[in-house]
Amino acid sequence: MDTGRIKKLLERVKSGELPVDRALDGLRALPYDDCGYAKLDLHRGIRTGFPEVVFCQGKTCEQSVEIVKRLAGHHAKVLATRVAPDVAERIAEEVAGCSYHGTARILVVDRPEKKPRKPVRTGKYVMVLCAGTADLPVAEEAAVTAESMGSRVERAYDVGVAGLHRLLDQKERIMGANVLIVVAGMEGALPSVVGGMVSCPVIAVPTSVGYGASFGGLAALLAMLNTCAAGVAVMNIDNGFGAGYFAHLVNR
Amino acid sequence: MDTGRIKKLLERVKSGELPVDRALDGLRALPYDDCGYAKLDLHRGIRTGFPEVVFCQGKTCEQSVEIVKRLAGHHAKVLATRVAPDVAERIAEEVAGCSYHGTARILVVDRPEKKPRKPVRTGKYVMVLCAGTADLPVAEEAAVTAESMGSRVERAYDVGVAGLHRLLDQKERIMGANVLIVVAGMEGALPSVVGGMVSCPVIAVPTSVGYGASFGGLAALLAMLNTCAAGVAVMNIDNGFGAGYFAHLVNR
Amino acid sequence: MDTGRIKKLLERVKSGELPVDRALDGLRALPYDDCGYAKLDLHRGIRTGFPEVVFCQGKTCEQSVEIVKRLAGHHAKVLATRVAPDVAERIAEEVAGCSYHGTARILVVDRPEKKPRKPVRTGKYVMVLCAGTADLPVAEEAAVTAESMGSRVERAYDVGVAGLHRLLDQKERIMGANVLIVVAGMEGALPSVVGGMVSCPVIAVPTSVGYGASFGGLAALLAMLNTCAAGVAVMNIDNGFGAGYFAHLVNR
Amino acid sequence: MDTGRIKKLLERVKSGELPVDRALDGLRALPYDDCGYAKLDLHRGIRTGFPEVVFCQGKTCEQSVEIVKRLAGHHAKVLATRVAPDVAERIAEEVAGCSYHGTARILVVDRPEKKPRKPVRTGKYVMVLCAGTADLPVAEEAAVTAESMGSRVERAYDVGVAGLHRLLDQKERIMGANVLIVVAGMEGALPSVVGGMVSCPVIAVPTSVGYGASFGGLAALLAMLNTCAAGVAVMNIDNGFGAGYFAHLVNR
Amino acid sequence: MDTGRIKKLLERVKSGELPVDRALDGLRALPYDDCGYAKLDLHRGIRTGFPEVVFCQGKTCEQSVEIVKRLAGHHAKVLATRVAPDVAERIAEEVAGCSYHGTARILVVDRPEKKPRKPVRTGKYVMVLCAGTADLPVAEEAAVTAESMGSRVERAYDVGVAGLHRLLDQKERIMGANVLIVVAGMEGALPSVVGGMVSCPVIAVPTSVGYGASFGGLAALLAMLNTCAAGVAVMNIDNGFGAGYFAHLVNR
Amino acid sequence: MDTGRIKKLLERVKSGELPVDRALDGLRALPYDDCGYAKLDLHRGIRTGFPEVVFCQGKTCEQSVEIVKRLAGHHAKVLATRVAPDVAERIAEEVAGCSYHGTARILVVDRPEKKPRKPVRTGKYVMVLCAGTADLPVAEEAAVTAESMGSRVERAYDVGVAGLHRLLDQKERIMGANVLIVVAGMEGALPSVVGGMVSCPVIAVPTSVGYGASFGGLAALLAMLNTCAAGVAVMNIDNGFGAGYFAHLVNR
Amino acid sequence: MDTGRIKKLLERVKSGELPVDRALDGLRALPYDDCGYAKLDLHRGIRTGFPEVVFCQGKTCEQSVEIVKRLAGHHAKVLATRVAPDVAERIAEEVAGCSYHGTARILVVDRPEKKPRKPVRTGKYVMVLCAGTADLPVAEEAAVTAESMGSRVERAYDVGVAGLHRLLDQKERIMGANVLIVVAGMEGALPSVVGGMVSCPVIAVPTSVGYGASFGGLAALLAMLNTCAAGVAVMNIDNGFGAGYFAHLVNR
Amino acid sequence: MDTGRIKKLLERVKSGELPVDRALDGLRALPYDDCGYAKLDLHRGIRTGFPEVVFCQGKTCEQSVEIVKRLAGHHAKVLATRVAPDVAERIAEEVAGCSYHGTARILVVDRPEKKPRKPVRTGKYVMVLCAGTADLPVAEEAAVTAESMGSRVERAYDVGVAGLHRLLDQKERIMGANVLIVVAGMEGALPSVVGGMVSCPVIAVPTSVGYGASFGGLAALLAMLNTCAAGVAVMNIDNGFGAGYFAHLVNR
Repeated sequence: MDTGRIKKLLERVKSGELPVDRALDGLRALPYDDCGYAKLDLHRGIRTGFPEVVFCQGKTCEQSVEIVKRLAGHHAKVLATRVAPDVAERIAEEVAGCSYHGTARILVVDRPEKKPRKPVRTGKYVMVLCAGTADLPVAEEAAVTAESMGSRVERAYDVGVAGLHRLLDQKERIMGANVLIVVAGMEGALPSVVGGMVSCPVIAVPTSVGYGASFGGLAALLAMLNTCAAGVAVMNIDNGFGAGYFAHLVNR
Repeated sequence: MDTGRIKKLLERVKSGELPVDRALDGLRALPYDDCGYAKLDLHRGIRTGFPEVVFCQGKTCEQSVEIVKRLAGHHAKVLATRVAPDVAERIAEEVAGCSYHGTARILVVDRPEKKPRKPVRTGKYVMVLCAGTADLPVAEEAAVTAESMGSRVERAYDVGVAGLHRLLDQKERIMGANVLIVVAGMEGALPSVVGGMVSCPVIAVPTSVGYGASFGGLAALLAMLNTCAAGVAVMNIDNGFGAGYFAHLVNR
Repeated sequence: MDTGRIKKLLERVKSGELPVDRALDGLRALPYDDCGYAKLDLHRGIRTGFPEVVFCQGKTCEQSVEIVKRLAGHHAKVLATRVAPDVAERIAEEVAGCSYHGTARILVVDRPEKKPRKPVRTGKYVMVLCAGTADLPVAEEAAVTAESMGSRVERAYDVGVAGLHRLLDQKERIMGANVLIVVAGMEGALPSVVGGMVSCPVIAVPTSVGYGASFGGLAALLAMLNTCAAGVAVMNIDNGFGAGYFAHLVNR
Repeated sequence: MDTGRIKKLLERVKSGELPVDRALDGLRALPYDDCGYAKLDLHRGIRTGFPEVVFCQGKTCEQSVEIVKRLAGHHAKVLATRVAPDVAERIAEEVAGCSYHGTARILVVDRPEKKPRKPVRTGKYVMVLCAGTADLPVAEEAAVTAESMGSRVERAYDVGVAGLHRLLDQKERIMGANVLIVVAGMEGALPSVVGGMVSCPVIAVPTSVGYGASFGGLAALLAMLNTCAAGVAVMNIDNGFGAGYFAHLVNR
Repeated sequence: MDTGRIKKLLERVKSGELPVDRALDGLRALPYDDCGYAKLDLHRGIRTGFPEVVFCQGKTCEQSVEIVKRLAGHHAKVLATRVAPDVAERIAEEVAGCSYHGTARILVVDRPEKKPRKPVRTGKYVMVLCAGTADLPVAEEAAVTAESMGSRVERAYDVGVAGLHRLLDQKERIMGANVLIVVAGMEGALPSVVGGMVSCPVIAVPTSVGYGASFGGLAALLAMLNTCAAGVAVMNIDNGFGAGYFAHLVNR
Repeated sequence: MDTGRIKKLLERVKSGELPVDRALDGLRALPYDDCGYAKLDLHRGIRTGFPEVVFCQGKTCEQSVEIVKRLAGHHAKVLATRVAPDVAERIAEEVAGCSYHGTARILVVDRPEKKPRKPVRTGKYVMVLCAGTADLPVAEEAAVTAESMGSRVERAYDVGVAGLHRLLDQKERIMGANVLIVVAGMEGALPSVVGGMVSCPVIAVPTSVGYGASFGGLAALLAMLNTCAAGVAVMNIDNGFGAGYFAHLVNR
Repeated sequence: MDTGRIKKLLERVKSGELPVDRALDGLRALPYDDCGYAKLDLHRGIRTGFPEVVFCQGKTCEQSVEIVKRLAGHHAKVLATRVAPDVAERIAEEVAGCSYHGTARILVVDRPEKKPRKPVRTGKYVMVLCAGTADLPVAEEAAVTAESMGSRVERAYDVGVAGLHRLLDQKERIMGANVLIVVAGMEGALPSVVGGMVSCPVIAVPTSVGYGASFGGLAALLAMLNTCAAGVAVMNIDNGFGAGYFAHLVNR
Repeated sequence: MDTGRIKKLLERVKSGELPVDRALDGLRALPYDDCGYAKLDLHRGIRTGFPEVVFCQGKTCEQSVEIVKRLAGHHAKVLATRVAPDVAERIAEEVAGCSYHGTARILVVDRPEKKPRKPVRTGKYVMVLCAGTADLPVAEEAAVTAESMGSRVERAYDVGVAGLHRLLDQKERIMGANVLIVVAGMEGALPSVVGGMVSCPVIAVPTSVGYGASFGGLAALLAMLNTCAAGVAVMNIDNGFGAGYFAHLVNR
């Protein structure tokens, strides 16, 4: 797979330095850490540019603690999302360097003793907009994720389309962004309006905020997928983490 | 049901002027015209303020012609919607005073010899907006309907949210309207934006314009039902007629 | 945007009365009050005819209290919907002039010291009908909203179509209304029956009342969107507030 | 399975009249006619009271002709539904005694030389109502089916809820029925209104008549399933045959 | 509406016995009892053959108690469905003659001092089948309802299609029934199998029993609507009451 | 049904050994144990190769205990699925030989005194893969089921497609399996990838793991049904038991 | 990936027989044939036990012809599914050894000059059942696929559950099968009934046969996924090919 | 809105150079070209970095020709998507510089006499992958769009997950891309697999390729939204244009 690495290995086999059987092992062994119920992908940092992120929803408290602990043994920075407050507390008891963002439900582990990631140059920023106050947890999940990965992040909240002047008032900051994250529930119209104003990519995140025929965010999701504005791509409902991660990749 | 009419009838029974059996008939006979496959509701004009409108979709050509002909024998104005061009031609051959609106697929019969409806005073108007060029047939169905019923109608087409300045440029006309009809397909965001700008009622009409996850207009419909703007009510997908009719009732 | 205001401003710039930089500020500054997680749209009263209404569902108790308090500092009347009883209590402790409508889950703040809104003339009224006892909270949300905005409201509850005489018995009051709100769950048939009886606009509100294949109000919603009666527009499931607001705009 | 028949067979085995192997055959052999792609259930007449009905939709013309021909060889009356006009013509060329009902798309084969079914006593009748003209094909499918099976059938078409007086005018005939079939598309409200008026069973048939959010009859189907009237059961969308068949079983 | 009654009334008006104004009142006054949040339809017994049934789900405990109490003042028998055990207890404290069926969640009030309904002749019976143990509450709701209305009821539970011999073993009782109620969740196949065995009407009731892609009973509902067996009609998901009521109307 | 048994019975009737009436009983009596709310299918072991399995979800605790107890009286091994921990405890108090698998929620009763099932030869094994840690309960339900029935089972967990090397690292074990069970939530892509690697049948099990537009496992279910890999069949969402059972039938 | 092959390659590198650069090529080159719009997976035969099958639906006629021609150059047997008659004709003009199965829409290319696949031993057979005549194309697609791959196949068509005796009459053949394919549209009940009768794996295939609320096969699909019978797995709607392929893997 | 421009304008007003009324006009006039049914957004090039793109689906041939002609009068490059071959021909007759991409259904107008856009530096490229041959039209729509806007584009088609080696063989080109577009129908698994391999942003495009439970691309759409790989955002079904546009914004 990794041509360079295989070539070097073959050279060593040729020179007799490496026995065939151990070469075979080397060809198979990509690094991960197996704790039975989970195989921690330690290689992902090299492959995709950022270490594996722990999605805690659906995992037991014990599993979450163990996984974060193991990853923290390998990486300078670990990110865990959808962390309930009590789970965050439990992790912090066992792992040094934790900080917990309550609204975003994100826990970040920073190991100062490990080599930090090269920071993004600050002139370029990700901007996170959200339509209403109830969309905040998703917007914050996006913002904290992008910040943790190294991006500079600007925020403008409660700028829904039913009061356009609140949005237009942010126009200069919006137009200066390198990439936008637009979070909205209910009818999910904000990305269409924003998408028509700017020349940078817009990442739309539908939220499950709403009632009745919002059907858990389906209405906003469909609206965003059908946007008439070009330059808009969509994340899963409530997937603030995904938006922040994607935005950082673009902003990098 | 009609208290006044029943009272008069009872007075005549009391006075012996009307035999009991004929009184019974009178109590039952509300006027409609039965042509077998259809019972034309001639009474509707009195009851709901406008004669029965013929919805031609799903009817055979023969049925459409016959029904319009019969209604035209009773009323000064007849409206037929979803009329295919060939059906319209057939009707025009048999009924005098027809005019056909091709884009709107509406046929109007005007019988000058019958007493016309009292026109609405022209200061108040219904305004019809649509998001894109492909929404025109629905927008025109709404506009022609309201005009046929007696309302003054203003139009502004192709003012979708991805180019806000086209919409904002119409702001004065929009704010002067007595009631708005906002037609949009795809993500259906236009009613939310317009609803936040005005103080009059907004009637939102989703269209089946779109592709992929628009699911035949479902995306726009859900968006409009979930609008964050107050003062917006929604019609069925592609129901331009319903919007024009409702708008006229408000504008009247 | 506001032509008159901009013109006046430009005149003052021309006369030298207003420096360019301050004019620039004035052009940008539309009034809203920013409390971080929310941007209160103080301008909405002028723009749409009624101050911003607080939708408390999905907001924390602290946010609800803060927002109502801030709005109450600016307006003679403030409306908050979907207010849980304990949140209402908390607001009432901090804001004077609160009255809470339990069934409707609406809290109204009246500041007698501020200039009240001009009341609607009492001859015209909104009438609220509902099909069953379980639809009451939505019906009351609609009724209290319209009343709070200044409309006279009549009510007739539990008049579902399976016992037509209960409905027909209200016929005179129904036919005298200026605009109707018809609330129903289950099969959502009531708006179609009522729509065929009257000549005024009918606002249909589906409720999530029902079980099995009602799918949280979807059955009633689809029925209402597909009504065969002209003059009916539809709100989101359980959106009593929206119906009351829309009805007042028409009744005004 | 058929206790009496098995007992008689066992008696004959006991008496030695019937060898064991042939008894075994007899126990297995229920009569059907196998033409490869179809196994004609000749026994159904005995088991369910009416011979197998041929549903022609989805079958090739050749298959339809062959199956009707074979059944006509065994039964006094054969019913084929969803028969296209050209298929009906082809069948009539090969089978004697055919009559074709165009609107209902039903072909009936009557073999006068075979013993006719005992007719239902004429005092009791099935009544078929439909809401609009476009619902006629389904209503006629129901009516012709029940008539073919031997029931007396009354019809009242175009009596939708938006013009209640047309329905109420039929009240005496409706209340005199032994069982009602109520056919409606769009919002499907008619069965609820009728169900509240009568004391006999009501069979509701949703049709695919409508557009937009009727989603091929789903709106009417859900409405009927959620009816607030007791005494209403529902058939599949456009299933006029099923309603006519069920109604005859009740009326018998 | 009620021709006979109107005729008699008109005769009295003619004879001068009844003044016009009171005749008018009489024409309007169909009996119902208004307790504000509910209009009890006392006339329904005459109109549909059985007094109004109280559906307690979605009503407060106070409303349920009050409504049952009022109806019990007028009728010999009152039926309340979806009654939680604590609500049943509360009703029993205030109303005499209550008996509560726990599995069926039905409360029946029998007032021996009032004239009982004429019982159905016992030779004819309704038979209730259910596929699995978890379907029992719905099956019992159906059975108790039909019994309360006067029908003789037979039961056979846990006879799902995956063990056909359990079903076939009941064949004689099944074939002797006058009408069948077949209750099933999961794939809802039982009505199709039973429908092919019998010559009487089959009422299919889908239940919300299942998991995963049963989607709250949708899978069973769709299966039953699409049954290949003729003579099957369908009720809403979990609507045991409706099935029992409908079955009694047929069995009567 | 059971030809051999019927033949023997008929022979005994012929020889006069068995009276006709008792033969009739014998023909009808297929063994099941009726405890009112359930008919235990004791015959299923002979018919389908494995005794009836108790699905405890939706049954009361009492019903679960009683049914397991009765089955344990007849069979060497009894399987109960979806057993809550407290129900498992109650059963263990009353039935000997219970072992409870907590993650799988399965209770197995082993009666050593009864003849054990012939074990499958160990060379052939079922392999269970799952995509993420949260899919474990379903994967374990599958694994424990297949093991209880007699198959040898291998496991590889947390091998989702976003870290292909974890999957490829298991390639030899995967390719050696006789049949594969692949469990995944979210986008459900794992069966497609695995299906393209192997030549044995793959049983795909979607789980309800996910959020937003996973709609309770619908996304994974649809993905698996639409797999582009041949040799993949699909179970209901979260149906680990079904997969384990099916896999054992193939592996046997 | 292929350990044996890599090991041999490494040995040759070690011995100096193979230069490093060519070894690198060898490690990368898995055989496929690239014709631009398609990459023919020539390796699949080794990997999954059967050569790539051409799914012609959605491909142009030219693409289908070219792909079959190329595969026929490499393999003794080629299978193409969803082949329209005219496309089949075009292929047969260019490729020798074609036979076309019209109902199944499958084209098989047999190259007698290439070594044929080892046939399955004939004692074991796949049995294909279908519920109705309209399900034949899907059933035949399954049967012809399994036969082409080398399995013996038995067929029993039109054995739907509404006439159980037709199914029970096939019982011995059904119980003798090694694996069953059960094809059904409409309510999709047949797999549940069959699944309760047998001890071998059952592959259920829903078809799009039906109308109204069958929603293109969704009703049958959901029913099959929710089957109460153990030992049933499900394919995509109309996926006869997948069922035949899977069945052969089990039967092999 | 455009602070700089407004400031300059105000300066000119202050200096008396610009009269107030003309300043007012200037503030309102954002350039667009109104042809009645469409308002061409000439300003979009400045605002969003690329001129308005013409979506021809749903427009009449005349409208498409007219709109392209007008835009070509203003811009150096015009893009029209979803252009049927005959419409493309008609446009080419009236507008110079047209080139038509048949598979992508895109028409590009290049006006050499106008200043061309600055090309992107060629080292960075967008890579377009698609899973199967039938996905080509969508993949090409994406590729041609990005190329027309100025990006360098690489392609790798028919690399679906069921033959992983075809994908892995492209690994070096894939890992070298600056942004990826991954197009897939059926189960839509490709973006998840690719997303786990790379460190650049992945734009997933579901296609309507598939049958049965693919529901017009819904299966692929849901799978992509629920991807377990981070760094993936999703476009509407079949929206190749949107993906190409978005990718260019990121690549720029």
